[in-house]
Amino acid sequence: MSTPAGHTSAIAASRVIGTAVYNTAGDNVGTIHDVMLDKLSNNIMFAVVSFGGFLGIGEKYHAIPWGSLDYEKSRGGYIVPYSKDQLEAAPAYSVEELTREDGRTARDASYDYYKVDPYWS
Amino acid sequence: MSTPAGHTSAIAASRVIGTAVYNTAGDNVGTIHDVMLDKLSNNIMFAVVSFGGFLGIGEKYHAIPWGSLDYEKSRGGYIVPYSKDQLEAAPAYSVEELTREDGRTARDASYDYYKVDPYWS
Repeated sequence: MSTPAGHTSAIAASRVIGTAVYNTAGDNVGTIHDVMLDKLSNNIMFAVVSFGGFLGIGEKYHAIPWGSLDYEKSRGGYIVPYSKDQLEAAPAYSVEELTREDGRTARDASYDYYKVDPYWS
Repeated sequence: MSTPAGHTSAIAASRVIGTAVYNTAGDNVGTIHDVMLDKLSNNIMFAVVSFGGFLGIGEKYHAIPWGSLDYEKSRGGYIVPYSKDQLEAAPAYSVEELTREDGRTARDASYDYYKVDPYWS
């Protein structure tokens, strides 16, 4: 079974990692660097999106709510419903900061910033 | 915050993949090959566990409920609360079969076989 838009629901983490991410204007804004998983709640916490990788050491990552990623087959990448300005002003973290407080610091700030309903209560 | 057992809750998918899996007797039964994610429900569907890899092409994989994996720091791997016999008799799939029916064939059979409460309704 597929979603109404023809997407499949099941996707392996290894296939998600490395996939390009585009903003609403169609600009390639980065790549899925990783997916943060919640061991306790069975939920996907957020996608870890890197912005180009040209920064190397010290690179910052965005925590993007999993549900905000919409795969577009024609582009071979995920579209996020955010503008360039929104993304540039979004909270960003080092790898260490992403897992701080069990990932909740980054997760909570991200869901708040992007105004996505939390999956946790 | 940590779980009662001192585990952390947030874990990156890239760190899960490749981790060893042990059964209740302490035998190394395989490796986490991948993690199947549910795009629609925000849930982790199951861990994809390979059994050694020596089978090469045609290798079968087990779908293990995410919540059944318990990380044991001293071993550097996940313990599953199943015996060798249970695991050997468990449903196993090729990569293609794992994603059949959006992963639900493997997922449903796995949760049923291991008697784990479904996260879906």
